[in-house]
Amino acid sequence: MLENIQIVLNQTSHPGNIGAAARAMKTMGLIHLGLVNPKTFPHADATARASGADDLLVNATVYLSMDEAVADCRLVIGASARTRSISCPVLNPHECALRVRDESGRGRVALAFGNEQSGLSNEEMDHCHFMVKIPTASEYGSLNLAAAIQVIAYEVLVAHLSDAVPDDAGAEEHVPVDAAELERFYAHLEATLIDLEFLNPENPRLLMRRLRRLFNRARPDENEMNILRGILSAAQQKRTENV
Amino acid sequence: MLENIQIVLNQTSHPGNIGAAARAMKTMGLIHLGLVNPKTFPHADATARASGADDLLVNATVYLSMDEAVADCRLVIGASARTRSISCPVLNPHECALRVRDESGRGRVALAFGNEQSGLSNEEMDHCHFMVKIPTASEYGSLNLAAAIQVIAYEVLVAHLSDAVPDDAGAEEHVPVDAAELERFYAHLEATLIDLEFLNPENPRLLMRRLRRLFNRARPDENEMNILRGILSAAQQKRTENV
Repeated sequence: MLENIQIVLNQTSHPGNIGAAARAMKTMGLIHLGLVNPKTFPHADATARASGADDLLVNATVYLSMDEAVADCRLVIGASARTRSISCPVLNPHECALRVRDESGRGRVALAFGNEQSGLSNEEMDHCHFMVKIPTASEYGSLNLAAAIQVIAYEVLVAHLSDAVPDDAGAEEHVPVDAAELERFYAHLEATLIDLEFLNPENPRLLMRRLRRLFNRARPDENEMNILRGILSAAQQKRTENV
Repeated sequence: MLENIQIVLNQTSHPGNIGAAARAMKTMGLIHLGLVNPKTFPHADATARASGADDLLVNATVYLSMDEAVADCRLVIGASARTRSISCPVLNPHECALRVRDESGRGRVALAFGNEQSGLSNEEMDHCHFMVKIPTASEYGSLNLAAAIQVIAYEVLVAHLSDAVPDDAGAEEHVPVDAAELERFYAHLEATLIDLEFLNPENPRLLMRRLRRLFNRARPDENEMNILRGILSAAQQKRTENV
């Protein structure tokens, strides 16, 4: 349950990052934002970067410690770019999301992020059951705070949706025509190519096979089929008009 | 191959977003940035937001059109938050990444993003073989441009790092032609349809868009392209022979 998930930002330096974090969260259906000792909050930069997610800022809870922020959470996962000498088990974002999905149905879950420069301190990490590490290029792994939240929140939403009923209401449906109609098209195509003297009926097989492969890949729908058939008819008509 | 992947930003309004995009890219090992008519570039805001990824800005290529930006790309995938009335096949970020991984070994691939307010125009989308749509909360789907790039680039890197060998070992290799050649085909197709009086040059747009979607889906290879061009020439010739 997405409403059981809280994003906890520790010691954030730049209010703009808090706003961008709120926006990243809201796009993925996460609404609970906890702020542990933010350096500057509230602030106009936060509101500006939040765009339409400023309601998350209004409803954010400010805490004095990570301890307090995660008190009612059954599962706490900390994001880290660094490997720790004494570390909790490391998850990748996908594994993290599956765990969050499975456990957020039973109680509150926290996803904790550290300061922009230094990340989660070891003390903050002490509250975490797991660490989540976002894979990066070896040369440059410096994700912006909101970008890291975006990636984790995206995986959380994807995991959440994968559990739900497939939602394809918004997607346009592409319904390919059936095989019989496709065959009628191929027959028409072949006849037209013979009319155009592009295809030699003595040896037609390879050309038609190649064209079949092409259009089988495209899987035309009814509308597209009508256009293609119309083009063939136009070509045939022009051919015969003046013969 | 990550080095065969180009991120193409169209008509970006805010230079800060270009910088943030560069940072998002570089964290995931993507280094080629193409900018189509950026409103303001270069700019101090871009450099500031790029953080340690300003080398991508220095090496970015500025184009006059999407056409030009994707000319040498065999696969073009456009990001969109909107459903289109005439649409190409929609991939989720994971599916997009697998396809990019599998095809970037054979040639250049473009991932295109539209303007912050309006997204990719229908004309820009006409160059795309696929659309990638990031799942979002139903109430609020407004991802920041760099955040969207972060999610897609993250999936691309994850797919790249996954050891799985592309599952087409036995399949015959299909190498689609590049975008420039496809454009020449569309120009030839349009001219032929006008010759056949099937297309009214006064109002050509919807028909060509539908045909583009069909052939973008089919992704013809060199051989198929030659056949199609040959058919068009034959139709034009028959048309004029007896006029």
